[in-house]
Amino acid sequence: MSNQDRQNGKNAYGKRNSKKRYVTYRKTPKNKTLQQHKAKESVRIAFLGGMNEIGKNMTLYEYGGDMFIVDCGLAFPNSDLPGVDIVIPDFTYVESNADKIKGIIITHGHEDHIGGLAYLLKKINVPIYSTKLTIGLIKGKFEEHNLLKRAKLVEVKPGDNITLGKFNVEFIHVNHSIPDAIAIAVRTPSGIIVQTGDFKIDTTPVDGEMIDLARFAELGKKGVLALLSDSTNAERPGYTQSEKSVGESFEMLFRRAKNKRIVVATFASNIHRVQQIIDVAQSRGRKVAVIGRSLENLVNVGSELGYLNIPKGILIDINLIKNYPDEKLVIITTGSQGEPMSALTKMAFGEHRKVNLTPNDYVIISATPIPGNEKMVGNVVNELMKRNVEVIYEKMYDVHVSGHACQEELKLIMGLVKPKYFIPVHGEQKHLQKHAALAVAMGINEENIFIGNIGDKIELTRNQIKKLEPVPAGEIYVDGIGVGDVGNIVLNDRKHLSEDGIIIVVATIDSSSGYVVSGPDIVSRGFVYVKENEGLMKTAQNTACRVIKECYDSRYNDWNSVKSRLREEVSKLMYEKTKRKPMILPILMEI
Amino acid sequence: MSNQDRQNGKNAYGKRNSKKRYVTYRKTPKNKTLQQHKAKESVRIAFLGGMNEIGKNMTLYEYGGDMFIVDCGLAFPNSDLPGVDIVIPDFTYVESNADKIKGIIITHGHEDHIGGLAYLLKKINVPIYSTKLTIGLIKGKFEEHNLLKRAKLVEVKPGDNITLGKFNVEFIHVNHSIPDAIAIAVRTPSGIIVQTGDFKIDTTPVDGEMIDLARFAELGKKGVLALLSDSTNAERPGYTQSEKSVGESFEMLFRRAKNKRIVVATFASNIHRVQQIIDVAQSRGRKVAVIGRSLENLVNVGSELGYLNIPKGILIDINLIKNYPDEKLVIITTGSQGEPMSALTKMAFGEHRKVNLTPNDYVIISATPIPGNEKMVGNVVNELMKRNVEVIYEKMYDVHVSGHACQEELKLIMGLVKPKYFIPVHGEQKHLQKHAALAVAMGINEENIFIGNIGDKIELTRNQIKKLEPVPAGEIYVDGIGVGDVGNIVLNDRKHLSEDGIIIVVATIDSSSGYVVSGPDIVSRGFVYVKENEGLMKTAQNTACRVIKECYDSRYNDWNSVKSRLREEVSKLMYEKTKRKPMILPILMEI
Repeated sequence: MSNQDRQNGKNAYGKRNSKKRYVTYRKTPKNKTLQQHKAKESVRIAFLGGMNEIGKNMTLYEYGGDMFIVDCGLAFPNSDLPGVDIVIPDFTYVESNADKIKGIIITHGHEDHIGGLAYLLKKINVPIYSTKLTIGLIKGKFEEHNLLKRAKLVEVKPGDNITLGKFNVEFIHVNHSIPDAIAIAVRTPSGIIVQTGDFKIDTTPVDGEMIDLARFAELGKKGVLALLSDSTNAERPGYTQSEKSVGESFEMLFRRAKNKRIVVATFASNIHRVQQIIDVAQSRGRKVAVIGRSLENLVNVGSELGYLNIPKGILIDINLIKNYPDEKLVIITTGSQGEPMSALTKMAFGEHRKVNLTPNDYVIISATPIPGNEKMVGNVVNELMKRNVEVIYEKMYDVHVSGHACQEELKLIMGLVKPKYFIPVHGEQKHLQKHAALAVAMGINEENIFIGNIGDKIELTRNQIKKLEPVPAGEIYVDGIGVGDVGNIVLNDRKHLSEDGIIIVVATIDSSSGYVVSGPDIVSRGFVYVKENEGLMKTAQNTACRVIKECYDSRYNDWNSVKSRLREEVSKLMYEKTKRKPMILPILMEI
Repeated sequence: MSNQDRQNGKNAYGKRNSKKRYVTYRKTPKNKTLQQHKAKESVRIAFLGGMNEIGKNMTLYEYGGDMFIVDCGLAFPNSDLPGVDIVIPDFTYVESNADKIKGIIITHGHEDHIGGLAYLLKKINVPIYSTKLTIGLIKGKFEEHNLLKRAKLVEVKPGDNITLGKFNVEFIHVNHSIPDAIAIAVRTPSGIIVQTGDFKIDTTPVDGEMIDLARFAELGKKGVLALLSDSTNAERPGYTQSEKSVGESFEMLFRRAKNKRIVVATFASNIHRVQQIIDVAQSRGRKVAVIGRSLENLVNVGSELGYLNIPKGILIDINLIKNYPDEKLVIITTGSQGEPMSALTKMAFGEHRKVNLTPNDYVIISATPIPGNEKMVGNVVNELMKRNVEVIYEKMYDVHVSGHACQEELKLIMGLVKPKYFIPVHGEQKHLQKHAALAVAMGINEENIFIGNIGDKIELTRNQIKKLEPVPAGEIYVDGIGVGDVGNIVLNDRKHLSEDGIIIVVATIDSSSGYVVSGPDIVSRGFVYVKENEGLMKTAQNTACRVIKECYDSRYNDWNSVKSRLREEVSKLMYEKTKRKPMILPILMEI
């Protein structure tokens, strides 16, 4: 939603979401005023996305006249945003401080961290710092947007330090469901701030590089002012399984598949998952074919940059699968979320041009449904089963692990970093609050914990955490090539249209005499099947005739009055006859 | 979907779902032909709903010239059916056999078993047999539909037998999440058929009446030809917890709530749940207020008919809650699924007229989200938490148990009934197949298991189960008071409108000269915010002008040609400029 909408107190669901509902976990005592702090400079953090929501993560650090941004992601629209392709952060605050911004740091290459970058770059063009794979993925995006030439992409690696104005930023290796993810340690005159990015603690990661816990510990010993940590899995007890455990499941399932062809659906960005599928395929003498543009792209980028180790000759073109017997094949595909246009969904419904599933197929859905996708995934499973395909899905075996830290890992990081102030990020309210509760259990003072909202801006000094005036923040909808031109009015119209359709009442009127020279005609779409409801349409036409005549016979004959009476009366008639409320659109033509 | 649509090979998702995809678990050998069986009569079962879907359960039994129906439910539309209120079965087959139908048996009072009854009764008026509470709930529905006078409602109880033509039907008590649920044993000349209805095995039910396992066992000893059993929870291992365990959780949580006001959200039909809340409230000296029309209705019907035991003076009017301190109150409310218009959602968003939640409220959501509702429930939890309300939700404590049997219970019933033929019902394909796999594990011959689809009709003799020609079956959409007048064309229009909106191109043309005398005007809804896109609208208008002129200058000047060219060209323009595909609706007026 636009900042305008936010200020009008509407959230993305069209419901009111007034500020007063919002809870800051604990505010600083009121006796300290803003003035007292203005004298000495302090570090400030503005949350432009990822607070109280899953997706479009974006954080802005300020100190004196210097600023930098961490991540710039997108969110996928929910069903309340019909026709919207993606949602990106509102960049108003960034634009109005464009001259202060020294750079953008990207923690890893997932869409919720890089998906808004192309749109941001069109507003401000500052250096973008990230690791090799992430830069590779950003390049692909920028190419699509024709931005590659303009962009200043700077590759960094864990252990590196960069200076951004008065800030010094260090990169720290973390584990996640995509390689090359980093946390950052931000050195400011007020102290060190650690932001984890998305992370998990994988002691046996596929690429061999465990999260650099030692560095977190060193920073903790030096003293950390604040920790911003990933709340995605804060509701889940225990410890996230190692990605390696999925490989072990694959070994077992590939054995069980016997002579069947194996189809594995997974997230297109999970290079380690793809690596493990390839490894197990190799060990069992199967060739691998890849389907889905995003997966093909990942395999290309991943192998080019050295993140995927693909044995020679194992990859085959999808068009050649007919040359191999089922027992010699593994197909890796997108569609693990049951997305309607994905390869797996098309296969399930028998509509894929290249892969025709039979009872000799063994499908592994190596993912869990993201909240909201449960039904779509269920539909795909049902359709696969109707074809007598064997399907391994959901929690049947350990065919998926999360990329995010569970409660014990979150506590471990807190215990190492020992921050004075704690700020849970990346999560809905329930995740943020649960994460805050974990921090309290770890001995962090409740008053030193801040639960924020997008648009919140805080000030940190050695002695206090304080909420400042909020900054502009919100949701910008991208629909086609339009950025921000679809707002609440258009969306409300779309929702109304989708519920009961539209009835257009059109008439041509001789403006000098006031006579109707053509019409009124009734045209409807999405309302009822007209051929079966000719009587109803005729009645509507009679009503429109009468209303226009009455208006012109009275003094309410200006066009707005006529239109509003037409809307009222036709709407009333339709509700009486059908108990539905289609949109009524009167159009009066003048000659 | 209408039967027409089904025959066109479209399912509710607009995707093709051709018969050939469909799998019958195992067919009978082909050497036995239909003719061989025509000589002696046999029992036939037609599945008009509830097969390969959750909801709108409806089964039809036939023997010779006699028929009866078991259940007539509704299904709630998914997001692919915008504007549709409810979905009911296609009654074509019932109507064409109206004279043969001897009665309707209802197994219990849930919407997916009674929700289509009012619509069916408008087609055929035969006696309806069910238990006291179910009849009470049906009466409420019929009153709304003005059908009460016409309806022939016959109250039966477990152990009763009724004769319906050549059938004899016995009622058997089962446990479920609503009292008075029954299974049936259908005696036919071919043998006994047992249909469980929805059930679970609760050894410590709240009303003290355990499912009549002994009767299932007796029937099993006599010999049962076929078992039709509830597949809803066939994917879940183990045993469904007793409803009593929820009461124990309530006791613990009510203690923990200390001096806070308690709000419990639950399904409006779960009388036992409401009873337990009332019992614990009573023991802790709290008054109970009820919110939500369906809950109020249930409390009225339930207490009138003796299914709810309400201690004197414990119920208070919701308008009087302000007269009691928080620690003396429990509010029972609807909205456990996060439904947008429900009382709990309104409370969460601070929009409920009568209940204003504060940090001194303790909310228990006594339900798990039905697949598809996860996000809505999550939103409500987030909003409650933003108000610093303590929320107990999902699997935090045992505040909800299912009403359906899990795998061990399903196997137990099979073990007692020992049917020759097994037919899993009430479930999507994945549930039906899992249930079938359990049957195989129990030693039932794979060839004696039938996995069907709606519209399937089978014939059962002592020696075989056989699939006959399918009968008309499908989905009828109810929108407002319209039943079946919203079909695929209207729904596709609604979906199109919701994605990108509509652009209307309207012009008045002098039919004699072919001159445009007014317009063309461009009117849009749900497309872009017009004020910010005047240039685009102007371009569209120019395009429309040009197209009309070109048409009239050429020989393609009939109205259909003009309209289709307008559609094409304006659509092309809009896609070029916006990458969106709004519906283009040309309207030409003639004078």
